[in-house]
Amino acid sequence: MSRRTVLGPGDDCAILAPSRSAQLFTIDSMVEDVHFRLGWGPPEKLGAKSLAVNLSDVAAMGGRPGACVVNLAVRPGLGLGFFDRLYTGMRALAREAKVDIVGGNVTRADKLAITVALLGEASGAVMRRDTARPGDEIFVTGTLGDSAVGLRILVGKLKAAGKTRKVLVERHLNPTARLAAGLALARLRPHPAAIDISDGLLQDLGHILERSRVGAEIDAASVPVSAEYRAVMGDDLSLALGGGEDYELLFCLRPGRSETELARRLRVPVRRIGTIVRGRRTVVRDSRGEAALQVGGWDQLRGRL
Amino acid sequence: MSRRTVLGPGDDCAILAPSRSAQLFTIDSMVEDVHFRLGWGPPEKLGAKSLAVNLSDVAAMGGRPGACVVNLAVRPGLGLGFFDRLYTGMRALAREAKVDIVGGNVTRADKLAITVALLGEASGAVMRRDTARPGDEIFVTGTLGDSAVGLRILVGKLKAAGKTRKVLVERHLNPTARLAAGLALARLRPHPAAIDISDGLLQDLGHILERSRVGAEIDAASVPVSAEYRAVMGDDLSLALGGGEDYELLFCLRPGRSETELARRLRVPVRRIGTIVRGRRTVVRDSRGEAALQVGGWDQLRGRL
Repeated sequence: MSRRTVLGPGDDCAILAPSRSAQLFTIDSMVEDVHFRLGWGPPEKLGAKSLAVNLSDVAAMGGRPGACVVNLAVRPGLGLGFFDRLYTGMRALAREAKVDIVGGNVTRADKLAITVALLGEASGAVMRRDTARPGDEIFVTGTLGDSAVGLRILVGKLKAAGKTRKVLVERHLNPTARLAAGLALARLRPHPAAIDISDGLLQDLGHILERSRVGAEIDAASVPVSAEYRAVMGDDLSLALGGGEDYELLFCLRPGRSETELARRLRVPVRRIGTIVRGRRTVVRDSRGEAALQVGGWDQLRGRL
Repeated sequence: MSRRTVLGPGDDCAILAPSRSAQLFTIDSMVEDVHFRLGWGPPEKLGAKSLAVNLSDVAAMGGRPGACVVNLAVRPGLGLGFFDRLYTGMRALAREAKVDIVGGNVTRADKLAITVALLGEASGAVMRRDTARPGDEIFVTGTLGDSAVGLRILVGKLKAAGKTRKVLVERHLNPTARLAAGLALARLRPHPAAIDISDGLLQDLGHILERSRVGAEIDAASVPVSAEYRAVMGDDLSLALGGGEDYELLFCLRPGRSETELARRLRVPVRRIGTIVRGRRTVVRDSRGEAALQVGGWDQLRGRL
């Protein structure tokens, strides 16, 4: 436990020391047979991912995660050994991210569900979704679509083998929240608008556009994809544009920063993928021309795995 | 939204202004067919109760609730009208308790589940479970067991009619968190040890005893029960001692405060039910003598509704 945690688990509430800076507060949940199936990977990765998806929200605002509480809905058939391993994975990531797990609640349910509420602290400026302006350049970290391909490999809708399969599945089961990149981004002036890509590039970009009341032009050819993605998907960018669960950062900056400079500051690959424009349309240009896009993306309410 | 909420729902995280005092952090969940059945009452009461059970945790530590995030696991068959009503009930209680609902997450599931993570602020001293000392007098607010009787009426295990039924069922569906009483308690010197009675009197007392490394002697005859409880249960105190979901406060004070003085300060009936003693045993005395009790209580992992 850090010095900020006055009292951890075991009382009605955890007690945290007063916070000097603005606080960030978020909640996210992973539900069996909606977000994951147990056979897909070890419980440790499931525990870590349940925290990582929340860390990603704090990263997107440029904050430092601090303390979380966990609600565990347990179902028959899962023993203590399973939950030991799940917590081991969550704790390991918590330690790495300097998060105290300060409390929790256990309930019965028909399906396993892990819900984490996370408190973070602003490191200075908070990056928001509503500050993108026409002329801003749009960047993303890392590569997109790997997790969505990995998911489809896990459910048998796409095929891959060897290292390709391993890399893509790992991106789905064990995502990395871009905490250090988020902190570095929040130090830039003027402050970027930012979001984490959890629902798919175009859908999350759509959240920025909606909150900022602007449009965007995206150059499909510049959307970064991995060699593994190419190996499975070829030139099909649909899962890079709309796949979801990437947990990369999308951010909008006044023009003038190069990909190289940003990659150096953020310590992660950065690609410029387009521009914020006036109006409310999203235009995606590809080699065949341009298309005004119906913004779509990973919609977990749409269908079952 | 209060002045503390800088940014509410709609971004990756909510933004809260820095807190001047220590913070309280807790999470609790209500799961369909574990904690409730939909036919039992209107969605508004379900929404309110999902927040109330968290408010009770903050009340037990003498804090003021401030902001919450809500995870809603929705299942097929429940329409928008249902969730409108659920949120209406939650929002009404939030307004009354001065809580901002600052963010949320919606996921699919097989059963409806409402998980609330709540942040509060200490109003000065924080009441904990680990500060009870031998010689302390043990008090409870309100009456105990009504909610457990109400639950058994709802599932058909007990029978009642008219106003009796209504009062008991209402205590189960629409519990009141003792926020004002908690704040008043936290102003007493020396600070009381306290807990909210959510798992049943003896089980929650057990948490205080365990954390404080002490024992207790309880006078069963002084455990407060309502006329409605008596009407259904007669002299059977089992549900007052071990029923659960009362959301009353149990607290331990140095001797010398009368029930009358405490009731005036807390603005709620207060009953002295026993004494903290050395050792680790819980002894419950009734008219037939005394019995060292196996501490038991509402254990939601034990069985289905």
